[in-house]
Amino acid sequence: MKKIKLGLSMRQLGYHAGGWRHPDVPSGGAMDIDFYVRLARTAERGLFDLVFLADGVALRQRDEPAGSLCRANQNVELEPLTMLSAVAMMTKHVGLIATASTTYNEPYHIARKFGSLDHISRGRAGWNVVTSWSEAEARNFNREHHLDYDTRYDRAAEFVEVVKGLWDSWDADAFVHDKESGLFFDPAKMHVLDHKGKHFQVRGPLTVARTPQGRPILVQAGASDQGQEIAAASADIVFTAQTDIAAARDYYASVKDRLQRYGREPDDVLMLPGLLPIVGRTQAEAEAKFQQLQDLIHPLVGLSQVYGPMGDLSSYPLDGPVPDPVDPEMRSRAAVLLEHARRNNMTIRQLYLAASSGRGHRTVIGTPAMIADTMQEWVEAKAADGFNIVPSHMPVAVDDFVDLVVPELQRRGLFRTEYEGRTLRENLGLRIPASRYASR
Amino acid sequence: MKKIKLGLSMRQLGYHAGGWRHPDVPSGGAMDIDFYVRLARTAERGLFDLVFLADGVALRQRDEPAGSLCRANQNVELEPLTMLSAVAMMTKHVGLIATASTTYNEPYHIARKFGSLDHISRGRAGWNVVTSWSEAEARNFNREHHLDYDTRYDRAAEFVEVVKGLWDSWDADAFVHDKESGLFFDPAKMHVLDHKGKHFQVRGPLTVARTPQGRPILVQAGASDQGQEIAAASADIVFTAQTDIAAARDYYASVKDRLQRYGREPDDVLMLPGLLPIVGRTQAEAEAKFQQLQDLIHPLVGLSQVYGPMGDLSSYPLDGPVPDPVDPEMRSRAAVLLEHARRNNMTIRQLYLAASSGRGHRTVIGTPAMIADTMQEWVEAKAADGFNIVPSHMPVAVDDFVDLVVPELQRRGLFRTEYEGRTLRENLGLRIPASRYASR
Repeated sequence: MKKIKLGLSMRQLGYHAGGWRHPDVPSGGAMDIDFYVRLARTAERGLFDLVFLADGVALRQRDEPAGSLCRANQNVELEPLTMLSAVAMMTKHVGLIATASTTYNEPYHIARKFGSLDHISRGRAGWNVVTSWSEAEARNFNREHHLDYDTRYDRAAEFVEVVKGLWDSWDADAFVHDKESGLFFDPAKMHVLDHKGKHFQVRGPLTVARTPQGRPILVQAGASDQGQEIAAASADIVFTAQTDIAAARDYYASVKDRLQRYGREPDDVLMLPGLLPIVGRTQAEAEAKFQQLQDLIHPLVGLSQVYGPMGDLSSYPLDGPVPDPVDPEMRSRAAVLLEHARRNNMTIRQLYLAASSGRGHRTVIGTPAMIADTMQEWVEAKAADGFNIVPSHMPVAVDDFVDLVVPELQRRGLFRTEYEGRTLRENLGLRIPASRYASR
Repeated sequence: MKKIKLGLSMRQLGYHAGGWRHPDVPSGGAMDIDFYVRLARTAERGLFDLVFLADGVALRQRDEPAGSLCRANQNVELEPLTMLSAVAMMTKHVGLIATASTTYNEPYHIARKFGSLDHISRGRAGWNVVTSWSEAEARNFNREHHLDYDTRYDRAAEFVEVVKGLWDSWDADAFVHDKESGLFFDPAKMHVLDHKGKHFQVRGPLTVARTPQGRPILVQAGASDQGQEIAAASADIVFTAQTDIAAARDYYASVKDRLQRYGREPDDVLMLPGLLPIVGRTQAEAEAKFQQLQDLIHPLVGLSQVYGPMGDLSSYPLDGPVPDPVDPEMRSRAAVLLEHARRNNMTIRQLYLAASSGRGHRTVIGTPAMIADTMQEWVEAKAADGFNIVPSHMPVAVDDFVDLVVPELQRRGLFRTEYEGRTLRENLGLRIPASRYASR
């Protein structure tokens, strides 16, 4: 059986809404490079393939209900590309995936910065391609509203093609540095892209030499049809937030089936759904850890998680029943949540606790064996090639996973016992892509 | 007497056109992070205030005369912000100044990345503000031609104001992280810029906490009237390429005189002209070092330096006289160079060698005492507050300066013998700027 791949999503202080208040989470962590260096080294100790930083270029701006914004863990943090360049110097093996949006960036800047990170890290860089969909981001970049979906994805697809083209600007052996004859580069090995498209006109060449991985690893996370096409055309890794094994299998098959159209093999793309593990030596210990985190969710923060469908519930008793929304229009949006609450006889507190914990990622609470079981089940069912581990609170939950779950996976022969290669691409078992200018 | 300030310009493999062919210069240096780490550590050993990376976002594209482009040292290199984030982890004291253009960037990205670098380096970041003036750059960013001068500078001035505003988004004590009460930040200490200007609409707040230096150091290098106004309004440091002490004094006075208009003191801006030193233990040794470098300039590379005014001289004998340009229009542009060549009875080779060496920076060839003399003279004459050292070839010329010239400057009491503070701002002797939201 093929070994599973592991990523560590190390944004902020962890993904559980109550995580930042946990006594073992350092307060100033999100602006402290040493905090992230420690996390990346822990990932490396656990032989993870990569660490990953999600990103957005704005603060959430709606304070709904009032007082919730200043009580939630904010994405005030180090910028991913500068942070991972620093982390690169303090690690040796682990891959470094930064998110950057195609919406308010230029392809030349992105190609250059990720190319540079690939050189700095000696072949461990990756780019998670996203589009920017929030009004808050639009307002930081000269717009009142964000671009519509189709325009964003159309732009993203062209953006990725331009970046890939720029990464082919120089053959690997273009820079001969012949001091004797005075030849700095071989002009036959420089390629001018001269892209003229709908969204971009970019001449090139890039001012970065061909990178150690041929090009950085490309990551995509879009579940939509357009997102899957970009993934099938270019991605090496797909991140997803599947919570159900059947839906995950369908999505897995859907992406892999599209690859052929682009002349690619099923193994050319690795599917990594998110997984938020709460690990205990016993089931009871794991449940207790989870309960401790749930108890740390401030009611206003919890209520902000259900504000969208339910409106402002902050004036109702938290341990009383979930009320019917006053606004009839809201009633239809809240229908699913309301039915769920009614059927299970839930209080307001129980409702927001159920909605808050994992930010859309599958939460698994249990022993190392139980967590390894579910990982194995997903991989054997072709619902996943590995997992992007989304820790509840850091660094504690990362240590737990590395110390308890990784040995169990290794015991089962599911996970590596040492790094296979020198670059991220080698560890992932992916081929170096040929330059578009290579003679076939 | 005030101590002088020292910067090290560590771009590429050095600034002399023949430098890359020197036997002691490593061939793959420009893409090798260890090369720059070593340079920054040498600068730190020499107690330099800062290292500096100039930047451009395109390759030079004109191959004039044919064959010169592939023989010249190219700016194919690591991108400054990612590179200096990596260097930050391997150094402790030296300031880290990256260049980024205001022309094809967005203020939010720039504020965020430099803010992040300031946190990563624990208070050593600086931004050299430039505009993009080349056609080659324009063509990498969806344009056929670069913006006209006034538009570029108008945009740059607004850009800097937006970035400074974003850096004031959070008071230094905004993030209270009160785990007990569940308060993550104090909402009274968050400030929304909501900038609506001619070139930019940027809402904020920035997703980076207030930085260790209050804000990163700002550097400007524009000699024009508009450039001087931006410097007077915002810069902490001004880089210049003065070759003549009288012109340097005028420029120094011109910038310092403008400061009052912005409520600033003369000491709030430090003037650092470039200096390319060729150091020998004796004058003869220094001259020999320089001659070795001059001999390494490939004729085509040398001829490319005079191509602009003189046209293509590659078909003439290099050791014959400089011919009159055929094109009458070209004759007027070449007038100064031609007169210089005629008066000194120069050959073509002598002409291009004179034009090639220091890329516009003042070249001083001599003993440590002689180089210290000229530095002292400039500082005492109020032509400089210090110097941006532009090494001919790296790392050799940096070692020479640190080992030979720095001790001489220290002996004269002109230069520090240990770092004064923990941040770049402290070492430069500059105050932390107050937030625009601070109550007075």
